[in-house]
Amino acid sequence: MKNNSEIWFSDQQTDSVSLNIRVTNQLYHGISEFQEIDVFQSESFGKFLVLDGEVLFSESDEFIYNEMVAHVPMAVHPHVKKVLIIGGGDGGVATEFTAYPEIEQIDVVEPDEQMVEVCREFFPESTRGFDDERVQISYQDGLRFVRGRENEYDIIINDATDPFGHSEGLFTKEFYGSCFRALKSDGIMVYQHGSPFFDEEESVFRSMHRKVFKTFPISRVYQAHVPTCSSGYWTFGFASKKYHPITDFDEQRWNERNIKTEYYTTSLHRAAFMLPRYVVDILHEEEH
Amino acid sequence: MKNNSEIWFSDQQTDSVSLNIRVTNQLYHGISEFQEIDVFQSESFGKFLVLDGEVLFSESDEFIYNEMVAHVPMAVHPHVKKVLIIGGGDGGVATEFTAYPEIEQIDVVEPDEQMVEVCREFFPESTRGFDDERVQISYQDGLRFVRGRENEYDIIINDATDPFGHSEGLFTKEFYGSCFRALKSDGIMVYQHGSPFFDEEESVFRSMHRKVFKTFPISRVYQAHVPTCSSGYWTFGFASKKYHPITDFDEQRWNERNIKTEYYTTSLHRAAFMLPRYVVDILHEEEH
Repeated sequence: MKNNSEIWFSDQQTDSVSLNIRVTNQLYHGISEFQEIDVFQSESFGKFLVLDGEVLFSESDEFIYNEMVAHVPMAVHPHVKKVLIIGGGDGGVATEFTAYPEIEQIDVVEPDEQMVEVCREFFPESTRGFDDERVQISYQDGLRFVRGRENEYDIIINDATDPFGHSEGLFTKEFYGSCFRALKSDGIMVYQHGSPFFDEEESVFRSMHRKVFKTFPISRVYQAHVPTCSSGYWTFGFASKKYHPITDFDEQRWNERNIKTEYYTTSLHRAAFMLPRYVVDILHEEEH
Repeated sequence: MKNNSEIWFSDQQTDSVSLNIRVTNQLYHGISEFQEIDVFQSESFGKFLVLDGEVLFSESDEFIYNEMVAHVPMAVHPHVKKVLIIGGGDGGVATEFTAYPEIEQIDVVEPDEQMVEVCREFFPESTRGFDDERVQISYQDGLRFVRGRENEYDIIINDATDPFGHSEGLFTKEFYGSCFRALKSDGIMVYQHGSPFFDEEESVFRSMHRKVFKTFPISRVYQAHVPTCSSGYWTFGFASKKYHPITDFDEQRWNERNIKTEYYTTSLHRAAFMLPRYVVDILHEEEH
């Protein structure tokens, strides 16, 4: 039956900007121990997951985020065996890593079990990595999980999104220090770096770079176009103990893997680190 | 006095997606011979111009568009004397070109004189190039202006936005052919190529590339993040008779000019031509 009502979901990007998406159905609504969880069906973005009123990802653009988070460090680090994904309850990033046969273990730490169950039910494509026997989900706080671990992971992904909500602890100097120690001596951490465009978000962007720049010897920022993110423009941090994202990038090795992608290419890899002048200037200002 | 009413302007990107901007005031409303013109004041985007209900540009992101349109061909073409801007009534692109002392003439063709007057009144920063004596505005149809001209311009910018509205003629094969003839034997045309992300816009994106690819020996697409554009992701066509946007790009020459930018850098120049896999695939499919 055709749905004649117009239902619009509004994703508030700042106090005065929102991305509005017409939805055909609300597929799920629930309140977990940690957050409010909604799943909507839409024409333009397919199904999308909403946590506490904010879009976490949509079927039509999650590939951009997942590929840029997973393939960039994998095309740099020459021998990855153990990966940790903090806050990866939607499974998208873990699934991307399962494409690499040399990886032996992928630990996913996600406090919210209900969120994982909702994703399993409504986003089987994203969560299919959870069925890979190398993937282990721990339902606990990311900060607690990583604290005290030493010299264990080749790659750590901080997939948590919200510097103000229940994942606040994942954006502190202490957390970045714990990740540094949990990484092997040639480990790489990739983390969400937010969007620098709106004035309201610039201070978080600055503070993240300041903290990580002081903790890791190599700290670079790269970008992608993710329509459901704030202003459609998202950045990622590449923090590393040894490998540089461009000079240690092995284009040929990655291309020989023949991994099918929709966004990432090895040309785009280099290009993603070339940032607009205003972003370069912001980052430089925090590097002292 | 504080404005307590919540007024939201809705920029409809597709039938089921809109970017909503809270406005503090409507500064102008008028109906010209060609279109409805509005100017709003907002917190997140500053002042912004709306034509027939769609955002044309905002104070806070126009620099991205203007710089990427002007500096990319200028960093490639070695001796530019004469530039034509079709549909550049807001002045932003013309103003960017006035930064180059070697340019002798900048022709702006804009049918809507009222739109130019509104921009002069509310966007003095964008339109300040109109006061440069090298800039000549012709109030007429772009297609008619360019038709019949031969071997005259070094660079032509097609700044018109709307393949369906009153500027429809500026997206036809005939128009691209006229631009080809109006360019000198080493001329470059840069044009708006739209956004390939939403399914609704993909066919326009494809058809533009198909037409231009058949007309010009060199035809490449480059990208930028423009928040007020559809899905925040915008592309530009670089169509050229002789110069290639990467192999004929002279980084050192451009940097020696010391032109102040907020978005463009010579690193970003190269990077902007590295497109996501799904966009590369779409373009390849139209190249036969």
